[in-house]
Amino acid sequence: MIDAVGPAVDGGRRPVKRVVGEPVEVEATVYADGHDRLYVAVAHQPPGARGWAVVPMASTNPGLDRWAASFVPGEVGLHRYRVLAWVDHVGSWLDGTQRKLDAGVDVSSELLAGAALLEALAPKVAKTERPALAALAGRLREGDAAAVADPTLLPLAHGGLKAADAEVSRPTLEADVEPERALFNAWYELFPRSWSTKGPGHHGTLADVAAQLDYVASMGFDILYLPPVHPIGRSFRKGPDNSETAGPDDPGSPWAIGGPEGGHTAVHPQLGTVDDVADLVAKAAQQGLDLALDLAFQCSPDHPWVTEHPEWFRHRPDGTIQYAENPPKKYQDIYPLDFECDAWRELWDALLDVALFWARRGVRIFRVDNPHTKPFAFWEWFIAEVRVRYPEAMFLSEAFSRPEIMHRLAKVGFTLSYSYFPWRQTKAELTEYFTELSTPPGVDQFRPSAWPNTPDILTFQLQGAPRTLFASRAFLAATLCPSWGVYGPAFELADNVDAANGKEEYGASEKYEIRDWDRNDPASLRELLGELNRIRTDHLALRTLRTLRFHHADNDALLVYSKTPYAGPSVDPARPHQASILVVANLDAAWTQGGFLDLDLAALGVDPARPYTAHDVLADRTFTWEGSHVYVELHPDEQPGHVLRITQE
Amino acid sequence: MIDAVGPAVDGGRRPVKRVVGEPVEVEATVYADGHDRLYVAVAHQPPGARGWAVVPMASTNPGLDRWAASFVPGEVGLHRYRVLAWVDHVGSWLDGTQRKLDAGVDVSSELLAGAALLEALAPKVAKTERPALAALAGRLREGDAAAVADPTLLPLAHGGLKAADAEVSRPTLEADVEPERALFNAWYELFPRSWSTKGPGHHGTLADVAAQLDYVASMGFDILYLPPVHPIGRSFRKGPDNSETAGPDDPGSPWAIGGPEGGHTAVHPQLGTVDDVADLVAKAAQQGLDLALDLAFQCSPDHPWVTEHPEWFRHRPDGTIQYAENPPKKYQDIYPLDFECDAWRELWDALLDVALFWARRGVRIFRVDNPHTKPFAFWEWFIAEVRVRYPEAMFLSEAFSRPEIMHRLAKVGFTLSYSYFPWRQTKAELTEYFTELSTPPGVDQFRPSAWPNTPDILTFQLQGAPRTLFASRAFLAATLCPSWGVYGPAFELADNVDAANGKEEYGASEKYEIRDWDRNDPASLRELLGELNRIRTDHLALRTLRTLRFHHADNDALLVYSKTPYAGPSVDPARPHQASILVVANLDAAWTQGGFLDLDLAALGVDPARPYTAHDVLADRTFTWEGSHVYVELHPDEQPGHVLRITQE
Repeated sequence: MIDAVGPAVDGGRRPVKRVVGEPVEVEATVYADGHDRLYVAVAHQPPGARGWAVVPMASTNPGLDRWAASFVPGEVGLHRYRVLAWVDHVGSWLDGTQRKLDAGVDVSSELLAGAALLEALAPKVAKTERPALAALAGRLREGDAAAVADPTLLPLAHGGLKAADAEVSRPTLEADVEPERALFNAWYELFPRSWSTKGPGHHGTLADVAAQLDYVASMGFDILYLPPVHPIGRSFRKGPDNSETAGPDDPGSPWAIGGPEGGHTAVHPQLGTVDDVADLVAKAAQQGLDLALDLAFQCSPDHPWVTEHPEWFRHRPDGTIQYAENPPKKYQDIYPLDFECDAWRELWDALLDVALFWARRGVRIFRVDNPHTKPFAFWEWFIAEVRVRYPEAMFLSEAFSRPEIMHRLAKVGFTLSYSYFPWRQTKAELTEYFTELSTPPGVDQFRPSAWPNTPDILTFQLQGAPRTLFASRAFLAATLCPSWGVYGPAFELADNVDAANGKEEYGASEKYEIRDWDRNDPASLRELLGELNRIRTDHLALRTLRTLRFHHADNDALLVYSKTPYAGPSVDPARPHQASILVVANLDAAWTQGGFLDLDLAALGVDPARPYTAHDVLADRTFTWEGSHVYVELHPDEQPGHVLRITQE
Repeated sequence: MIDAVGPAVDGGRRPVKRVVGEPVEVEATVYADGHDRLYVAVAHQPPGARGWAVVPMASTNPGLDRWAASFVPGEVGLHRYRVLAWVDHVGSWLDGTQRKLDAGVDVSSELLAGAALLEALAPKVAKTERPALAALAGRLREGDAAAVADPTLLPLAHGGLKAADAEVSRPTLEADVEPERALFNAWYELFPRSWSTKGPGHHGTLADVAAQLDYVASMGFDILYLPPVHPIGRSFRKGPDNSETAGPDDPGSPWAIGGPEGGHTAVHPQLGTVDDVADLVAKAAQQGLDLALDLAFQCSPDHPWVTEHPEWFRHRPDGTIQYAENPPKKYQDIYPLDFECDAWRELWDALLDVALFWARRGVRIFRVDNPHTKPFAFWEWFIAEVRVRYPEAMFLSEAFSRPEIMHRLAKVGFTLSYSYFPWRQTKAELTEYFTELSTPPGVDQFRPSAWPNTPDILTFQLQGAPRTLFASRAFLAATLCPSWGVYGPAFELADNVDAANGKEEYGASEKYEIRDWDRNDPASLRELLGELNRIRTDHLALRTLRTLRFHHADNDALLVYSKTPYAGPSVDPARPHQASILVVANLDAAWTQGGFLDLDLAALGVDPARPYTAHDVLADRTFTWEGSHVYVELHPDEQPGHVLRITQE
């Protein structure tokens, strides 16, 4: 009987998510009637391979019949795996005979039985092994009890266990293995129109952004994400602070896509041209940055599709196209597409062409606006179609929706998803949420991205908050989550001014107006962000979520957690530092907080009997500690927390 | 999307276990993309029915997209159920339109859209409903906004939701519904040979047992279980206390089945005849007792099958039949059957014939010896074959094995199983174990029976223990578990003498010798057992495991739990008392223990604002309490615990 095989998503109906080098730790419940010994193994197969590699599983909890083994996928693509189990007749015989030998009981009958077992196995083992097996059988048949203890006996016999004779777990499971970038990444979002090199009052361009990429790269981010770069509609255009009427010079929201100049495959004339996008992709790559574009599948009333393809929209009884609404609110500047219209095939193809259009210009990463308002079946098809052509393509889901919806989007193909991080603020909230994210089933199906802010979200916590709280939130996001991002320069400049409408919205929102940011403000958090990103890059432990463990502190303002690198080929001396990382975060941005920690030293790989070194790679200070009980004190004006590299001589 | 539908065993590959009247509380995670309202329902089908009854599900946790509804199976057999879900277009429209009406927004366009929706539905609703639907559509088309609030609109529209248009959960799930006796029962085990009416020194007979049934019936048990009644082997017969040599008058172990007089379909001559079994079945029925026989599928060396069917046994290299062993121990009085021999079909048929032989003589309940040493596939086939002929047949599994093995036996068909109750003794152990047993997945697939002792088990806790501890263990078993049993008269006479071999075995074990029990000992616990069984019969709450809830007490010697009757047709005034039952057990058999309880009054159905009555149905005392914080004190010499019937005016 083989039950409860994992990791598995939805009972094996969906692949588990992994990146290259991230182990697949296979577990299963395996048992049989009777008292025979079992032999259990994982068989796994890389994409395109014909054969299966077999790894013996070890019994990890005999009382619960649990077995485990792991393999490390070394390449991108769908890896398959399953569990095989055999009743180990030779092992059982060996066991019983050895016990009789130990008790001094006559075993002449057992030796003959063993010889017969080995002789029957001969046709199943490799030809090269047969003479050795025959020799052992011969010794048993001649009554040589010493042959029972021959260490080659069991391995030889196990060579005769063939997959055709095994119980095999069903269904065969799959791991969707992506490049490491799918798990480990740091996003920086900016509105190009605010980045003019000509100074205030000018509309920034893509070329302006290309000229200032060093600002983003110097902070160590590796994905540069731009809100939609397409022509912006005129009809019902929104004015500053989302007001219903726009003045003649108001630029409008980039998400009201489409005008006389074109739709989703055009570029807003004031930003530049399609070629400027390709140029930005190339220049960003030189700085180690990937460009991400926004896929917002909706139209302004001025989008060419409105006249060319009215059949792609819903219509009201009076024949007009149905605008978006959340009764009684109306969004007359946005026409949703009707994904279930009669002409849905043409519509879906046109949307795929949008992504392929930008992919042909070098874009591989897409942030997807509100995917939960479109059919799951659409995304499953759409993402598969893009990935079959561009296997390294990545999709970030902007669905701040219910957990089931967010997980379903991940299961149908989204690489990453925004998370509830903005609203997880206390020690209890962060501990509960990140425990859920870092353990199965969550960690096998859903990759969270932690963003302290977005153009849509200035949390109540950050409204009017001191710069030290922005530092604390960045520190938490960057060290808790392998994927994080900020919307800047609002973030590093600690813009804390809300819309004063009782919501978690920015005042003077950049979504509706051009902002003039003082990026050289000496109080900017840009150096801290750079330090955090460099520490993440330099330490393997911070590239994973799976090994996250929380430790006890006697002060609720101190959040303590550790990570270790996952085992596997990533861990080699030529690569970044492989030490365990212990983080002590001060959740209080106003006051000094101190307390005793009760560290789980085993989780840190530390021998409790000897001293160990905790080197703060953020403050460049070194502590020498002994035992699990240590005192820590943090001053918010100095640093938001310790990032401690743990080593022991 | 319909996910995580329950109750389900092994993802729906096995049926869940239920008895008649026990509700199937169906839950599912149901959601869709977008913001439309959903309509969700359970469809269920009794055995043999063609149609499906449909029950609307209610949203129980919108944040987690959980929905629930239940149905109550009213007959024995396989009931099927599944979840259906529709996007509720009319409900969504109604919602949005109502919000606009509330906000005073013009809805003329919405009324026309609603009319069109209802008109399109007309062909789907029952003919009798069409005029009403058409009338509503007409009012909407004429601009009558009041029609939106018509309470018949939504039910009429939901009548047009057809299964053919629904998303349907897969696979369809099944509930194996058995008679209430499968869940609620009380077993009494006795060795007939110790029940001679002629006094000490005589071998008791089945007729002697038949003549003394009132002793068992007076204690309120409803199943009388006898160890194997077949001829006992002579070869290698075990003597007193499992000694290797038996004297000429030693009766041997009833589990060494088979002699010259016959095998599994014969009766040991000193006990009587096959007809005496049938007679005992009939006489027991008159006293409300069902007879249970033992199925121990193994043979003594003298069993007729050893000579008639040597091919049904394993052979050693020297040609002799392989006896049972656990190296270096040998059990030469027992030959295991080889369920995987070449002639397995004939062997399996012969074993089925054993059960059918006794079933034809009226036996419907079988206690199965060591089922985990035989193939699961055998039991699945065997139990199904018996149940297709005798649907009310019951099988108690004697597998004190690992949890996975015990659960698998339940999944392949065993009605009940012995449990770890003998070794769950402290408050923490009992709370953890019975929480696991009373919640999914356990409670849906595995029915535990709680036995304080068996002929094989005198726990270390009971060795040398006072009678009050026996009382406490019976009290716990009878009130925690709907199925319980004792091996008597050893139990009610508090036989606490162990075999002095460092094991949990009885001294002077009745398995190997005839015992002379003083059943009229005034210190016997028989009255307590009778009271416990009568209280169980009289209170519906004690017939279920599913509603078990533990409550806090500030003293670890006090175990506090409650049960309520499950909803359904069982709960009608003509049936036993339906009050909630609160149990306070004193786990300390030596000392008086008192403490404050912190009761979960909601679980008891008590309004915390008013006083309530706790009537101890064991001691016949009444307490009037108010609030959740009450003080309780228990004296082991007076009673092992309170069984409190909770009522409130």
